Amino acid sequence: MIRRIRRSPEGGRLSQSLRTTRMDAFSDGVFAIAITLLVLEISLPEDKAIGEGVLHLWPSYVAYLTSFLTIGGVWLSHTVISEYLARVDSVFLRLNLALLMVVSFLPFPTRLIAETMDDTEDARVAAPLYGFVLLALVVLLAAMWRYAVRAGLLRSDADDDDVRVTSKRFTPRIALYAVAIAVGFVLPRAGSLLYMAIAIYVLVPAASDGGVDDVPPEPAAT
Amino acid sequence: MIRRIRRSPEGGRLSQSLRTTRMDAFSDGVFAIAITLLVLEISLPEDKAIGEGVLHLWPSYVAYLTSFLTIGGVWLSHTVISEYLARVDSVFLRLNLALLMVVSFLPFPTRLIAETMDDTEDARVAAPLYGFVLLALVVLLAAMWRYAVRAGLLRSDADDDDVRVTSKRFTPRIALYAVAIAVGFVLPRAGSLLYMAIAIYVLVPAASDGGVDDVPPEPAAT
Amino acid sequence: MIRRIRRSPEGGRLSQSLRTTRMDAFSDGVFAIAITLLVLEISLPEDKAIGEGVLHLWPSYVAYLTSFLTIGGVWLSHTVISEYLARVDSVFLRLNLALLMVVSFLPFPTRLIAETMDDTEDARVAAPLYGFVLLALVVLLAAMWRYAVRAGLLRSDADDDDVRVTSKRFTPRIALYAVAIAVGFVLPRAGSLLYMAIAIYVLVPAASDGGVDDVPPEPAAT
Amino acid sequence: MIRRIRRSPEGGRLSQSLRTTRMDAFSDGVFAIAITLLVLEISLPEDKAIGEGVLHLWPSYVAYLTSFLTIGGVWLSHTVISEYLARVDSVFLRLNLALLMVVSFLPFPTRLIAETMDDTEDARVAAPLYGFVLLALVVLLAAMWRYAVRAGLLRSDADDDDVRVTSKRFTPRIALYAVAIAVGFVLPRAGSLLYMAIAIYVLVPAASDGGVDDVPPEPAAT
Repeated sequence: MIRRIRRSPEGGRLSQSLRTTRMDAFSDGVFAIAITLLVLEISLPEDKAIGEGVLHLWPSYVAYLTSFLTIGGVWLSHTVISEYLARVDSVFLRLNLALLMVVSFLPFPTRLIAETMDDTEDARVAAPLYGFVLLALVVLLAAMWRYAVRAGLLRSDADDDDVRVTSKRFTPRIALYAVAIAVGFVLPRAGSLLYMAIAIYVLVPAASDGGVDDVPPEPAAT
Repeated sequence: MIRRIRRSPEGGRLSQSLRTTRMDAFSDGVFAIAITLLVLEISLPEDKAIGEGVLHLWPSYVAYLTSFLTIGGVWLSHTVISEYLARVDSVFLRLNLALLMVVSFLPFPTRLIAETMDDTEDARVAAPLYGFVLLALVVLLAAMWRYAVRAGLLRSDADDDDVRVTSKRFTPRIALYAVAIAVGFVLPRAGSLLYMAIAIYVLVPAASDGGVDDVPPEPAAT
Repeated sequence: MIRRIRRSPEGGRLSQSLRTTRMDAFSDGVFAIAITLLVLEISLPEDKAIGEGVLHLWPSYVAYLTSFLTIGGVWLSHTVISEYLARVDSVFLRLNLALLMVVSFLPFPTRLIAETMDDTEDARVAAPLYGFVLLALVVLLAAMWRYAVRAGLLRSDADDDDVRVTSKRFTPRIALYAVAIAVGFVLPRAGSLLYMAIAIYVLVPAASDGGVDDVPPEPAAT
Repeated sequence: MIRRIRRSPEGGRLSQSLRTTRMDAFSDGVFAIAITLLVLEISLPEDKAIGEGVLHLWPSYVAYLTSFLTIGGVWLSHTVISEYLARVDSVFLRLNLALLMVVSFLPFPTRLIAETMDDTEDARVAAPLYGFVLLALVVLLAAMWRYAVRAGLLRSDADDDDVRVTSKRFTPRIALYAVAIAVGFVLPRAGSLLYMAIAIYVLVPAASDGGVDDVPPEPAAT
């Protein structure tokens, strides 16, 4: 009944420590900053009229959108994982730091992929490199989740079926990124569009399989 | 009596989940960063004495002020909406992500409008484009609110009249932006000043109609 | 006894609404970002060896230090004010937004004062301009505090003497800035050093008068 | 039993004031921003093909990684310290501000060390300078901890042995940085690699001595 109400005390039912709270706060900060810094990479070319220039920037928009949606999806997954946590330990905090490092690194390959979209040779380096960074995000999310399950960090009232479903969520994303990276080596533009497609696919809330989260709604306060 | 005290437990009266808390924290982060990054767009021209240069920057100041006040107004509306929420669901979190994407994108059109203020031809592109971004912010806020009402995300103790009044709040802002965009196509400077006027108008706390928020004050602790 | 424990419920003793919490979160975000962006303004001149270049940057360091300490002091004052608050209203939130606007604007005059330190003519513009921004910060803090007192936003258990002492805290800072600005018009370097001196003076914890805060320590949990 | 549950009320067992909460929130913000800004320092050289350019950036990657891991380690230490705090006072808040100032300054020496890695003369300035900043971080952490112990800011239920162990944690890090700085004066590249090694060493969770934290896991909610 009060399954999702862990931060709130009710006769000793507390189960989240200060460090979990701070991990969330620090992570939300890094997610928020990385997602907002992306826009700094978009800048108008000096030598063009603004109308033409704004249109000319489409690779920047695609890269911006893809990175924004990807970080958004990772953030959603992160909230789902932390939703299940009763506590964190030293290893989990390090895995979380590694995830944040990749998240905060993302603006750099985003800039690379935007700048090289019109040069096939360069794009063949930038597109897979960008893909590996996205892949690292999902792999780290999956590692955090699996570690949490094995190390007994989950709440004791977590439903076993829910846990099993969540465990299966990360595998298709990993497979999809592997395909997109392979495509990007040959056809970098197609690879870039695949990255965007994956980000959108992850964000579509699907009740059964593909969605990032299907935590059932909490009943309204009575 | 304890209407606005949802985050605090009192014998099961809890009504906000961890995900709502994190949505607020993440959103506050993005709002805070976007609003603070705006100042990075203001930079002194190299070829001018500082006294003259500082005055010469007035389009940057207007753009900065407008964007700052607009984000401030959107943040206030966001706090009002989340004030009413008992919980969030997958769709609401996506709508929120879309809002944050537009918020974090705002520094780019802000720079465009500041840079083109002295060239009418370019400004005729930049001013409406900026306006569409502002319009998108209000449309998304309205969508979030309406979705929350329909999907039953509001607290059960929310006053029906208050809900109805809040629902009506967004329409005039949408209409005003439509007018300002139309003006901006023809007279970009006038359009820019209209955007600033709307931002100020939204922030004026009006008890009856125009204000972003009129949540009645909570009685002091006794 | 439990004077400072307002965010925690205990049989209806709650006194801070969600909006106060979010005002704090949003404000902490803006303070943190503005204070961290300052370092981006420090950059090494291209044409110098690094040893010489690092020393040559002293105006940047002075400006960085002054702005950092000033924002730190404003943040401390802000925590003291919100410590006394039982609730916030529309006007208070607007005053807070105005304060955050000036805080987030500070990196721009900081850059100006750092860049013009070696040119007396330009510095005579930059130093007073910087001072006016610092002055605006204190004036807005004082306005927030006075408004909170008059509008009855303070907790009912706030000690009258404490409130009176806090009210008197802002006046000397305003006076000091007025002096420093006047000095800066004539001797910009002296003015700049005065700004730094004021920032340090404000941060020195003085039990009786000059300190930003002397909130008595809360007894440890028993 | 409820040792780490200080932020949650249970019949007067509260022990953290609003100011501690805000200190954490503000600090998490500065940590998150400083750690995320680091990536802005990485930029591709204009005159190189991307494949070569990306590899050419290795000093930037080393510097980025070192600074990221160092800030991560400082953040972990900060959470451990605040885990023990029952309250904060004026002096502690100033020490914390000083720590945050050094944290937010770190992107500047990070850029310096990345830019000078290929010039031994310049690197002999940049490497020790970078080291002194890292050293300052640990010294300030140690000062905060010792001050908290002496000023009686710790929770009354803090285990004496744990406190003693934590007190001893900072000394080896200080010694290691002293060695790395000395090495950096002569062999700047070796010094830089030592800084990275220290950052990694600090992050390795060691139950007995080297780890930043060994706070025992909190029992899951029952």
